Amino acid sequence: MIDLDFDKMGGLIPAIVQDHASGDVLMLGYMNAEAFAATLESGEATFFSRSRRELWIKGKTSGHVQRVKSIHIDCDRDAILVRVEQVGGAACHTGYRSCFYRRVEDRRLIIDDQPIFDPKEVYKK
Amino acid sequence: MIDLDFDKMGGLIPAIVQDHASGDVLMLGYMNAEAFAATLESGEATFFSRSRRELWIKGKTSGHVQRVKSIHIDCDRDAILVRVEQVGGAACHTGYRSCFYRRVEDRRLIIDDQPIFDPKEVYKK
Repeated sequence: MIDLDFDKMGGLIPAIVQDHASGDVLMLGYMNAEAFAATLESGEATFFSRSRRELWIKGKTSGHVQRVKSIHIDCDRDAILVRVEQVGGAACHTGYRSCFYRRVEDRRLIIDDQPIFDPKEVYKK
Repeated sequence: MIDLDFDKMGGLIPAIVQDHASGDVLMLGYMNAEAFAATLESGEATFFSRSRRELWIKGKTSGHVQRVKSIHIDCDRDAILVRVEQVGGAACHTGYRSCFYRRVEDRRLIIDDQPIFDPKEVYKK
């Protein structure tokens, strides 16, 4: 089995999600041991939601799941890199392709991309 | 000024470092407010070392500094993406280009890259 260092951050390891085709960094999530096992088992990126304190299959609500193409582990075994196919093209709940859609410019944040979907349409309640 | 959420993780924010030319994810570090300000000011990626509890200019010992090309902030303002020029070609203290040099394959870790330098040569004491 793969021995990861979940102790350093109270049971969680940060997981970087990268688009396997474009190389764009899409988001940063957190996995506990259960989320990591679920990701390996299901082939869909699964995280632990720190706000809701529960397992979170990315895209379960929006349909924009992340199909895992590869998983890499860093030298200290305390960070994960997941390369995915991003279904629907957008990883961010705001409708942007990447959660990193704002760039630091002259000590301010400016929006650096165009939204792909309208969150109001996707997250209808 | 840029308002980042340093509170969620006790003063630290994870910072993903990506090679601006190849798109390779090189490492994950942590910045406190001081490291973030130093990165903006100096143009060289600067982190907070969790083990040494001090500011850490990446590459200060090896000469393999990371020249900042762009900085992006995520939707929740609790993650940073730094695109860099990696001087010397290797970000990892093990001599690999990326700290993510091991791939998960059949529930085991296999080495997925060739080292660029010999750590014994670079980190002479």
